[in-house]
Amino acid sequence: MTFVPAVREQRFVLETIADLPGLAASERFAEATQDLVDAVLDGAGQFAQGVWAPIAREGDVTGPKWTERGVTMPPGYGAAYRAYVDGGWGTLGAPTGFGGQGLPYVLASAVLETLGTANMAFALAPMLTCGTIEALLHHGTPEQQAAYLPHLSTGAWTGTMNLTEPQAGSDVGALRTRAEPLGNGKWRIKGTKIFISFGDHDMAENIIHLVLARTPGAPEGTRGISLFLVPKFRLDENGAPGTPNDVRTVSIEHKLGLHASPTCVLSFGDEDDCIGELIGPEHGGMRAMFTMMNNARLNVGLQGVQVAEAATQKAVAYASDRIQSARAGRMDKTPVAIIEHPDVRRMLLRMKAQTQAARALVYYAAAMVDAATLGDLTAKARLELLTPLVKAHATDLGNEVASLGVQVHGGMGFIEETGAAQHFRDARITPIYEGTNGIQAADLVGRKLGLSDGEPFAALLAEMKQDAGDGALRDLIDACEDIGTRLCRASADDRLAASYPFLTMLSVAVCGWLMSRQMRLAADGDAFGRMKRAACAFYLSQIVPEAIGLRAAATAPASELYTIQAEEFAA
Amino acid sequence: MTFVPAVREQRFVLETIADLPGLAASERFAEATQDLVDAVLDGAGQFAQGVWAPIAREGDVTGPKWTERGVTMPPGYGAAYRAYVDGGWGTLGAPTGFGGQGLPYVLASAVLETLGTANMAFALAPMLTCGTIEALLHHGTPEQQAAYLPHLSTGAWTGTMNLTEPQAGSDVGALRTRAEPLGNGKWRIKGTKIFISFGDHDMAENIIHLVLARTPGAPEGTRGISLFLVPKFRLDENGAPGTPNDVRTVSIEHKLGLHASPTCVLSFGDEDDCIGELIGPEHGGMRAMFTMMNNARLNVGLQGVQVAEAATQKAVAYASDRIQSARAGRMDKTPVAIIEHPDVRRMLLRMKAQTQAARALVYYAAAMVDAATLGDLTAKARLELLTPLVKAHATDLGNEVASLGVQVHGGMGFIEETGAAQHFRDARITPIYEGTNGIQAADLVGRKLGLSDGEPFAALLAEMKQDAGDGALRDLIDACEDIGTRLCRASADDRLAASYPFLTMLSVAVCGWLMSRQMRLAADGDAFGRMKRAACAFYLSQIVPEAIGLRAAATAPASELYTIQAEEFAA
Repeated sequence: MTFVPAVREQRFVLETIADLPGLAASERFAEATQDLVDAVLDGAGQFAQGVWAPIAREGDVTGPKWTERGVTMPPGYGAAYRAYVDGGWGTLGAPTGFGGQGLPYVLASAVLETLGTANMAFALAPMLTCGTIEALLHHGTPEQQAAYLPHLSTGAWTGTMNLTEPQAGSDVGALRTRAEPLGNGKWRIKGTKIFISFGDHDMAENIIHLVLARTPGAPEGTRGISLFLVPKFRLDENGAPGTPNDVRTVSIEHKLGLHASPTCVLSFGDEDDCIGELIGPEHGGMRAMFTMMNNARLNVGLQGVQVAEAATQKAVAYASDRIQSARAGRMDKTPVAIIEHPDVRRMLLRMKAQTQAARALVYYAAAMVDAATLGDLTAKARLELLTPLVKAHATDLGNEVASLGVQVHGGMGFIEETGAAQHFRDARITPIYEGTNGIQAADLVGRKLGLSDGEPFAALLAEMKQDAGDGALRDLIDACEDIGTRLCRASADDRLAASYPFLTMLSVAVCGWLMSRQMRLAADGDAFGRMKRAACAFYLSQIVPEAIGLRAAATAPASELYTIQAEEFAA
Repeated sequence: MTFVPAVREQRFVLETIADLPGLAASERFAEATQDLVDAVLDGAGQFAQGVWAPIAREGDVTGPKWTERGVTMPPGYGAAYRAYVDGGWGTLGAPTGFGGQGLPYVLASAVLETLGTANMAFALAPMLTCGTIEALLHHGTPEQQAAYLPHLSTGAWTGTMNLTEPQAGSDVGALRTRAEPLGNGKWRIKGTKIFISFGDHDMAENIIHLVLARTPGAPEGTRGISLFLVPKFRLDENGAPGTPNDVRTVSIEHKLGLHASPTCVLSFGDEDDCIGELIGPEHGGMRAMFTMMNNARLNVGLQGVQVAEAATQKAVAYASDRIQSARAGRMDKTPVAIIEHPDVRRMLLRMKAQTQAARALVYYAAAMVDAATLGDLTAKARLELLTPLVKAHATDLGNEVASLGVQVHGGMGFIEETGAAQHFRDARITPIYEGTNGIQAADLVGRKLGLSDGEPFAALLAEMKQDAGDGALRDLIDACEDIGTRLCRASADDRLAASYPFLTMLSVAVCGWLMSRQMRLAADGDAFGRMKRAACAFYLSQIVPEAIGLRAAATAPASELYTIQAEEFAA
């Protein structure tokens, strides 16, 4: 196990990119002092390294098991989860008044990153609980909040998101799960949901399912969707888990990666006895869902950071140990560690640069969550603009870095025991779930660019230009401005055809900006500073120019995609 | 199972890119008439579809098993292999006079492609046998050829390549396996080899291991390496497999992909009774190895085509069936097949374009093998130049396309039963084995660019420029000329630092050239022609400009990689 918590890097990005000291200057986040932040990051690192990382491989190999009585987790997971609850790690960002510590979201993100770098599949459990908390906090009644939030904050109960049905994936509005009113404020739920992460397990006292469903006579599509809370165990008169609800785990999926995370097919109301309660207004499900979803999208972006960091550490360790061949063109024919060979070093430096870029992007957006909490409307708008970039680009980077990690390992990378392949497998879901990256790109060009007449987009670019100086980064920003402005006026088809390449260009521009800021602020006096500057320099000199190469794709009209009929793709 | 043999496309590329009719005009390849080519492609397609494709998933799920008595293949593989031998599919490209049909190499490549698209892991067995045949044909004695080639040509016996040892991967010269002369022309072999594909199995009557080893007093490094033939069963007086040789399969690897291919650790001479014979001169092992290796490199490039074709077919089929959401910006709110959505179409068109580009590149190089056989020295030199591009770029494309295939499937892509994930896993070894893609890039800039004072490189670029017209392709070719010329004069470090981005640029330039040729030659009158033109147009308008974005990386000095010490990567 090569995982070492990236505490120094996290602290640096929290300071220079997320302006955590600025947040701590507010009354709301006054507790987030330097001392506390250090203690939290160090403690989380030790916990993740000591308790969660050691069972990551076992979870991949063994995986959870489906039984008639529910899903059982692999050996060690129950104890490791209890240690997480007992250590209070779930409560960091959770709301005060409900057992939470109310610390900045961006700090809680750093902790979740550490947990996920140690054990990505396992960290999905707290990650989903986090989304459940958000939904209840913004849309639950005071009674609902009082009943559920304290248990969710500690992690004693976990949460799930139930959106997808076989015919309703990206098109959530096509869902068919039904909810009938029982007259007593409760609802009877009936339907089947798929791809439910941690939909069942044996680590927590209760599982709180948030379920999208249709009420009788509801309008078609997303406008007719409502959100329901369905506990695995109904609460008794003391608010404790009591009678089992009518929720059955039909099966768990055999997946490419994230094996330690049970992905469930859940059947609600097979016996017509699945009881839930409405969260928010009837037909208000989409709004509530977006509360969960936006949170989840940032957190999936954070998974990109997790897997990139884990893959990079493993590759650096391997390349530093593996002796093979002398340096080319040298008199000295002594074999060296492969990290000394130029192309291996290029791969490793790229991995470092992309990982740091992804982290900067995610922390920057996460800090906007906190700024928005403090009432900063500009930050709120920027967060909305950046969310698709965080979700899509950080996960693309996680995949690229995990693949490079396999490559650095050579033949050993293809052997499962080495562990590099697990990161490659685990990473692959992140561009898919919580809205595919294609959906993110559509969100960017379809909604976010034009938000408030394009003001947030213009403001971001203006701020980036002030910092960028001349050179490739400035060229990329200018290209993004030009293309983005054009896309706002383009037809839906043209916009969508260009959406993904444009999302990548804009993401690299933002990352380039954040990397250039870090390069200016990194001291050259120690190893950390030198590594940081080298990674930032590589990003600016090699990765930014690559993104300019996407200009043709980001300006290509949709007509290029429709010169042929769908059937002709099989020709 | 969605696999349909890509016969129309194969025939088109054989005609327009590989000039198969031109080859058939020679006496040597006179048998390769249009009728015969059609019969071979159709027949191979039917065979692959009917016999090899149906067991691909079973091979992935079950995999071969190691036992004390040897490796047993998954259910159905023995029978499917016998059908391959009985059908004479192995003999197509094998040498006449030894039971082979002596048809053009490029035609045999098309057949191997079809087999591998149906079942990539399984097709490794004939692929490795092919390399063994090449080595014997060029370096064996007439007696050795007579004893082994007839059986290898039919595939009744299979072949393996034994290069790698734990401490000797990319650095083959570090190998330690020893060979001691027995005085009777035979040698006693002792050592351990790893990563031996189809190193043992129960499908063939014999397995012919080609093993690199050191003889007593041999010089250090690659200059002291010799090649030995070690049969699993020694031949009796009738030339039939007799006494088992002292070769033991120690274990088989648990791999990310290619599960149906047993990857063995082989121990030679545990009982000091492993008998082999020398192939070629003592200390001539590297030359013989490169005969195998160059063949294998083309064939690994072909695997990139195989997995790309398979992934594309699966994604097109899924996207044509899966109904989800109405077209954006349309009055009609009827949900459509996702192939109609612009970003999905962009992914599918990219998959088609990259698959076709990879195929054109591989066939073009394979046709040079045949031209070289006919005595064309220019073709021989071009083949040498192109081999690293074929191996590296076609496998990179295989990986990109397989990953896009997962993405097109959405959440289903992450579920193993769907099959998209298998392609993603299978593809990942191809940029690693037979010389990592980094080694290919080093070969390109270190040896191939400067070959014959750079004449083959200059000639290729000149020919490409004649065709290219103005625009992005011409810009890319010019950039490659400029950078390639500079790299020839650069230091070893600078050359290697730039090698991978340069290899990609040059590969895309060559593919762009081949796609532009195909676009000119494709008729617009039918679905095949329209699809071909759309794929070529997409390649030229979107993928070629992307490669220009690599210019900065391909001109960056190595010093950017060495501002930090190796230890600082862990900071």
